[in-house]
Amino acid sequence: MPKATVERLPLYLQCLQAMGDVESTVSSEELANTAGVNSANVRKDLSYLGSHGVRGVGYNRLELCTQLRRALGLIEKWSVVIVGVGNLGSALAKYRGFDASGFNVVGLYDADPAKLGHPVDGHYVKSMDDLELDIKEHDVSMAILTTPAAAAQSVADLLIEAGIRSILNFAPSLLKVPDEINCRQVDLATELQILSYYQAAGRA
Amino acid sequence: MPKATVERLPLYLQCLQAMGDVESTVSSEELANTAGVNSANVRKDLSYLGSHGVRGVGYNRLELCTQLRRALGLIEKWSVVIVGVGNLGSALAKYRGFDASGFNVVGLYDADPAKLGHPVDGHYVKSMDDLELDIKEHDVSMAILTTPAAAAQSVADLLIEAGIRSILNFAPSLLKVPDEINCRQVDLATELQILSYYQAAGRA
Repeated sequence: MPKATVERLPLYLQCLQAMGDVESTVSSEELANTAGVNSANVRKDLSYLGSHGVRGVGYNRLELCTQLRRALGLIEKWSVVIVGVGNLGSALAKYRGFDASGFNVVGLYDADPAKLGHPVDGHYVKSMDDLELDIKEHDVSMAILTTPAAAAQSVADLLIEAGIRSILNFAPSLLKVPDEINCRQVDLATELQILSYYQAAGRA
Repeated sequence: MPKATVERLPLYLQCLQAMGDVESTVSSEELANTAGVNSANVRKDLSYLGSHGVRGVGYNRLELCTQLRRALGLIEKWSVVIVGVGNLGSALAKYRGFDASGFNVVGLYDADPAKLGHPVDGHYVKSMDDLELDIKEHDVSMAILTTPAAAAQSVADLLIEAGIRSILNFAPSLLKVPDEINCRQVDLATELQILSYYQAAGRA
């Protein structure tokens, strides 16, 4: 499946869920409008799921939700650890949207001894020394990395060594990871820079 | 400039800055390796800036940084407001990376009267009633939206009405904005869903 399609699947799921339970079918045009995507693209994207819709009727909404959830791996519940319990790490630990989507934060870790045992949203911050055993014992495969930039690569190496397969990296540092590891970076300053590009360009 | 190019420019800038001051030139291969982008793409992207490099030598690093900063609108300092001072809004108010990139958080706003006057990183949370006047008085054109999903659209409408041109939306809600407004959504659960897609696909 093309990368751009994969990145649009969560958007379609979000749109379908926001439509509420009243509508039993949805047309590609309707989904395209809500998602802000061209309707030919919507049909193409959904065809990768084996979903083709019925001409003049559209897609069965619940069936499409299930197909999207299955494709996105959301049928199973994922356990996630958060490493780096600063402002952002704490905020993410408290974020309700993860749990609603099938992601369960099972542990918070920090290298700062002053933070250990500190309660954050029902979890007690644990030592980095506990990380490897916890990951193995609880079969955790996803991690959210919210350490300072300087620590990010060494923590990523440690996570991968312990068995983590996917890393969502909020540290403003590009990680080098093996090909078989999934890594996404969310760089908050980058997002603002993309906006300032368009704004500066628009005013030029 | 193609959208994909625009989205890679902050990455190039980040890579060049991470190289430190020692290196005066950089080859497209070197930049490609650090950024994890194909080197032909790097050359194509940089050619949009009018930067072509010298065969066998590469690009002047400082000059390239300046060109990237100029293209990204980072020569000027942008004033930003944060609306919605929950866990994420507070964490973003304290985030040092914005300031380092040329973005200056000038005000925090929340609809909850219980939060008003509460200090967050040297700012006092202000009322939504102050928003419009503050935006006009301080010539603010960018906003970070960290309200609950249900409030996001009405707050976005208010911001645009007050003169905001760019919105970085963290609320898990798709905003409808006029064409001339720049809007980017960072949906944290979406990022994890993209990772779970690849992880589930890899295990299938």
